[in-house]
Amino acid sequence: MAHLRKTGDAVFSKVEKVNSELFSLTYGAIVTQLLKDYEEVDATNEQLEKMGYNIGIRLVDEFLAKAQISSCQNFSETAEVIAKVGFKMFLGVTAEVTNSNASEFSLQLTDNPLAEFVELPEQYSQLSYSNMLCGVLRGALEMVQMRVECTLTKDALWGDDVTELRVVLKELMDEEYKDDDE
Amino acid sequence: MAHLRKTGDAVFSKVEKVNSELFSLTYGAIVTQLLKDYEEVDATNEQLEKMGYNIGIRLVDEFLAKAQISSCQNFSETAEVIAKVGFKMFLGVTAEVTNSNASEFSLQLTDNPLAEFVELPEQYSQLSYSNMLCGVLRGALEMVQMRVECTLTKDALWGDDVTELRVVLKELMDEEYKDDDE
Repeated sequence: MAHLRKTGDAVFSKVEKVNSELFSLTYGAIVTQLLKDYEEVDATNEQLEKMGYNIGIRLVDEFLAKAQISSCQNFSETAEVIAKVGFKMFLGVTAEVTNSNASEFSLQLTDNPLAEFVELPEQYSQLSYSNMLCGVLRGALEMVQMRVECTLTKDALWGDDVTELRVVLKELMDEEYKDDDE
Repeated sequence: MAHLRKTGDAVFSKVEKVNSELFSLTYGAIVTQLLKDYEEVDATNEQLEKMGYNIGIRLVDEFLAKAQISSCQNFSETAEVIAKVGFKMFLGVTAEVTNSNASEFSLQLTDNPLAEFVELPEQYSQLSYSNMLCGVLRGALEMVQMRVECTLTKDALWGDDVTELRVVLKELMDEEYKDDDE
């Protein structure tokens, strides 16, 4: 998968970028606002995911245009492309793919640019702080005809060694149907 | 001020970065959420500024540590440092300083990474979409003993050629007093 790493590096070098700390503090401001609005963790987790979904359906165009990935042969290849090109292109870091099979995979992040400098206070220990990422993946994959469920299964903020997203393929959507619908 | 541009470029090349489009969509998600919460433009403008203030008081440390700027001789020099080093370090773009004197200056941005792909719907035509920037400047400057007022005076989203922030110095705060207070 060395060629995917190279593609990821090349694409990231070309895109416009902003400071990662500004991004993480801005993201933190959203999480804080949602906790204030929804007053509980589950609803905040859900809202972060929805927010990510709306971002994901918009980001996928830039991804397809700039990364110039030809379509993936199988779901395991999709996993590698997301890990080495997608994450690099948007967050500047790569993920490791683990437990991958024909319909599931996990993505592990050692560095998570969303959660730098963050600690969860005790009352928010169940918060899926980076749940926006799950939404982004769901939104982006839906735009390329893959309906997935994505959940945050490990989080450095929960004391885990890594932050891990589990992606499960639910349905390969029928492209022709979608075209008819338009 | 060519040396400041060089400093800005050098610092930006060293910091961790994320994709600018991801940042602008994430920022857009905040603005949308606040409009939903506060249901009116003035309160949203105010909240964006407060959010920026909290970010600014945290960002200033990274700025001072990484940019290694010795203290500014006067407010006009402060303006140039913000425009050429601060904006570059955090947003990847530089600003132009205009109408600068001993206690006021304006910063003009041709490219505004917060507002890419944004259009204001008619009912939000008075929205100071990028008001977070005003807050960031107020927060960061307060940490170096300058109490300022900062307002968004032009915005490409309002149809102006540039996005412009006006910064007015209200008070040079007494550093010793602050130390006593701690």
